Amino acid sequence: MSVIYDRVALIGLGLIAGSMAHAMRRGKLAGEIVGTSRSAETRETAREIGFCDRVVDTAEEAVADADLTVLAIPVGAMGSVARKIGPRLKHGATVTDVGSVKRHVIEQVAPFMPKHVNFIPGHPLAGTEHSGPRSGFAALFENRWCLLVPDEATDCEALGRLRTLWEAMGANVDEMDAEHHDLVLAVTSHAPHLIAYTMVGVADDLKRVTDTEVVNYSAAGFRDFTRIAASDPTMWRDVFLANRSATLEILGRFTEELFALQRAIRTGDGDRLFDYFTRTRAIRRGIIEAGQDTGAPDFGRADTN
Amino acid sequence: MSVIYDRVALIGLGLIAGSMAHAMRRGKLAGEIVGTSRSAETRETAREIGFCDRVVDTAEEAVADADLTVLAIPVGAMGSVARKIGPRLKHGATVTDVGSVKRHVIEQVAPFMPKHVNFIPGHPLAGTEHSGPRSGFAALFENRWCLLVPDEATDCEALGRLRTLWEAMGANVDEMDAEHHDLVLAVTSHAPHLIAYTMVGVADDLKRVTDTEVVNYSAAGFRDFTRIAASDPTMWRDVFLANRSATLEILGRFTEELFALQRAIRTGDGDRLFDYFTRTRAIRRGIIEAGQDTGAPDFGRADTN
Repeated sequence: MSVIYDRVALIGLGLIAGSMAHAMRRGKLAGEIVGTSRSAETRETAREIGFCDRVVDTAEEAVADADLTVLAIPVGAMGSVARKIGPRLKHGATVTDVGSVKRHVIEQVAPFMPKHVNFIPGHPLAGTEHSGPRSGFAALFENRWCLLVPDEATDCEALGRLRTLWEAMGANVDEMDAEHHDLVLAVTSHAPHLIAYTMVGVADDLKRVTDTEVVNYSAAGFRDFTRIAASDPTMWRDVFLANRSATLEILGRFTEELFALQRAIRTGDGDRLFDYFTRTRAIRRGIIEAGQDTGAPDFGRADTN
Repeated sequence: MSVIYDRVALIGLGLIAGSMAHAMRRGKLAGEIVGTSRSAETRETAREIGFCDRVVDTAEEAVADADLTVLAIPVGAMGSVARKIGPRLKHGATVTDVGSVKRHVIEQVAPFMPKHVNFIPGHPLAGTEHSGPRSGFAALFENRWCLLVPDEATDCEALGRLRTLWEAMGANVDEMDAEHHDLVLAVTSHAPHLIAYTMVGVADDLKRVTDTEVVNYSAAGFRDFTRIAASDPTMWRDVFLANRSATLEILGRFTEELFALQRAIRTGDGDRLFDYFTRTRAIRRGIIEAGQDTGAPDFGRADTN
């Protein structure tokens, strides 16, 4: 694989940026990788690990002469960074982001992008419950989807090159518009996260059940919720605030359906429960067939995972 | 390890009974294992796999002369099986079950147990989303908890022997009363399962988001829900109906809390969201420290799981 961008600037040095750096290194996809983070401690750790060629102190320095700039920071921080780097961007450069919400990011970032720059929002659907500069790894994007959100003004060559980069890092690339992206993600990610956070909070609150009991007896079901609910608090606060309307719409549908099932339990309507549970099994089969998870049983133990 | 029970009867030949048979074989814990299932097809499959020494056609035959009988069938089927086997049970034998609900099982089973038999309800907190006679494996119970629910009349020697069996199959054993068990499990398992089923159903219903999109873009969050929601429909219908009041209580607390977080999203109260999400992270840490899950990142891909 040959170099796709001569110089890449990573703004933010967490799980996604770190994984991109590792993957670009492995594939020799970038001539030079320059990184920065608002936190001095994070910059120091990144220097120590060495996944960037250079770690600089400010976003303005990082984007100087960069062919691709990646905004890999919480959604709520995108606007102020865009304002700072806008005037420093190279003519013809591409700017992308990895935020979990697209309409809000476009509203915050696009006004600061000069006419001579290609701003192509993006969202790799990959992650773990870990965060920070030590959490990245080269294989994170393999066989995962990356959604790009171009509009009618997007330059085809610039879009093609960004797509090539993601594919070279192992991802499958799809394109959709910002509104649809935000609805799809509200269903597949944002609402499930809020629900998991809520359930874990309820367990913690319940005085008649001790934390030790919750922790020890979490084998079935609850364990998966705690993994989801261990995700980065800042990132998720921003996601919910930035994708407010789609998230609230899906949560509204969810509570409606939950009330119907609660009613079935209360009235002893076993047939309704059985039919519902049978239907949801089919979706699981689809995910395994699509290669997005394994059909192997989930042992749920440290020594076999 | 020496033989703990000369003859063990397994009523039901699904994931739990199959795994018990494999684990007892591995540890040479039973002199003879006799199994049965209501379904002729399941009995045939079990004979083919050969994890029992004998597979017989009826529960009455299976329990003849058994020192330990294990009811490993859906909670809703326990009562009618107990009625059939009651008169056939050997003097001094132990009967246990592996149901996810305890108060209801005791109400259904205890009336049919003769005075000369020790009925000690149990619940191994282990499982995968698979079911049926082919899904069992010897390591299922290793480092998992098994909860036993004795009462003041329980014979100490019989309880100690059952505990020894579970420990020899790799489980940690704890004891609690039936009401507390049902509340703890409503929090750690039953409510999370109903919530996961609901969310997967909502995604399937939403016409503006295609099933392909749901399947492809399920990497973050939703994927774990689909695994939970792929569990056996019959078993779970019975669990919700049998643990109705505790499940509805926890779901009530859950929706109350969910509404509070929805309100925080609607009003843009980022601090409240951030604090909540920070608190839930701590519970996850507790679970990893307790050895009930791994701290390794969840790659979520078939080739690494």
